[in-house]
Amino acid sequence: MRAANIGPELQRLIDLLAKLPGLGPRSAKRAALYLLKKREPVMRPLAFALSDAADKVKACGTCGNWDSINPCAICAEPSRDPSILCVVQDVGDLWALERAGAHKGRYHVLGGLLSPLDGIGPNELAIGALVARASAGAVREVVLALPSTVDGQTTAHYLSDQLDPKKVSVTRLSQGVPVGGELDYLDEGTLAAAMKTRRPA
Amino acid sequence: MRAANIGPELQRLIDLLAKLPGLGPRSAKRAALYLLKKREPVMRPLAFALSDAADKVKACGTCGNWDSINPCAICAEPSRDPSILCVVQDVGDLWALERAGAHKGRYHVLGGLLSPLDGIGPNELAIGALVARASAGAVREVVLALPSTVDGQTTAHYLSDQLDPKKVSVTRLSQGVPVGGELDYLDEGTLAAAMKTRRPA
Repeated sequence: MRAANIGPELQRLIDLLAKLPGLGPRSAKRAALYLLKKREPVMRPLAFALSDAADKVKACGTCGNWDSINPCAICAEPSRDPSILCVVQDVGDLWALERAGAHKGRYHVLGGLLSPLDGIGPNELAIGALVARASAGAVREVVLALPSTVDGQTTAHYLSDQLDPKKVSVTRLSQGVPVGGELDYLDEGTLAAAMKTRRPA
Repeated sequence: MRAANIGPELQRLIDLLAKLPGLGPRSAKRAALYLLKKREPVMRPLAFALSDAADKVKACGTCGNWDSINPCAICAEPSRDPSILCVVQDVGDLWALERAGAHKGRYHVLGGLLSPLDGIGPNELAIGALVARASAGAVREVVLALPSTVDGQTTAHYLSDQLDPKKVSVTRLSQGVPVGGELDYLDEGTLAAAMKTRRPA
């Protein structure tokens, strides 16, 4: 009896929507109802945008950013500093840094983090390409913008070792109190790191 | 600088995903990245499911339920009791009642609630069709399964008045303590209603 009376076309749509991160089975139904009410303004354009992006959006051959041009808009932008390379886990982190306007150089998308338990070794990530870019001469600094997790730190250590023989300085994002953050709500690790790397006021 | 470096195909996909209820601009980006990583298993099937459902799913000519057959699977099911008609605001509420297995009769989807402030009067809703169905002879009882809001109650009163001259009994869902609900967390209105309609234990 459960949901047996939803037709197969609609059920398949709901099942696929429910796979999206942020949508569960119940919100997928709500989204499907919304789409059926907005067929021409949203539902058909979304169907087109999905297949259009699936056809055209590719990983940039240089940095791994998703774009419909290759090299991507960031690699092709002449005003960006080619001497600073920012290494990120995936394109979502690249977008976050762009949104913050935090980096004026180029990027390198690893495509994940080293994770021996999940069978992700150096060959599964774009590490060889990173070392090659760092060796090519134009790059002076590699900024490791990786998450402060065990896998992120493992990956950062591995990359530092790999880049050590090259003539580049390897840096990482600083740790500390988030802007606007209350000390009271911060975890002990962050507070200890912020204290250890304190600076003149 | 904000998000200027996301290509137009990808940006359009993100903008459309962000329109879905339950997804905001940030989770729409996360959903787009997920889809690009799952092009064959999810992204292209979702594009197809969207245009397929947009083509095939229509409102049932009898009850207003969304289905790809007309009359819909519920109206066509011979085992369902044609003498009890359950009136719901929209198809989402019909699905909720079906999930609960709470109703063995047929449905009537209004397509909204009366809302003078929003300019929604009786002609904007499937009220004429409801009165016609209730007058046709087979229907003995009309259950108003409408939300306990001002608009829901306005609509229920209006429907009761319209159905009053017909030979049908008009009922509504009872109000009270939700199953598994703590009294402590319930609003005063619900508690008062539950007390007023108390029954022998």
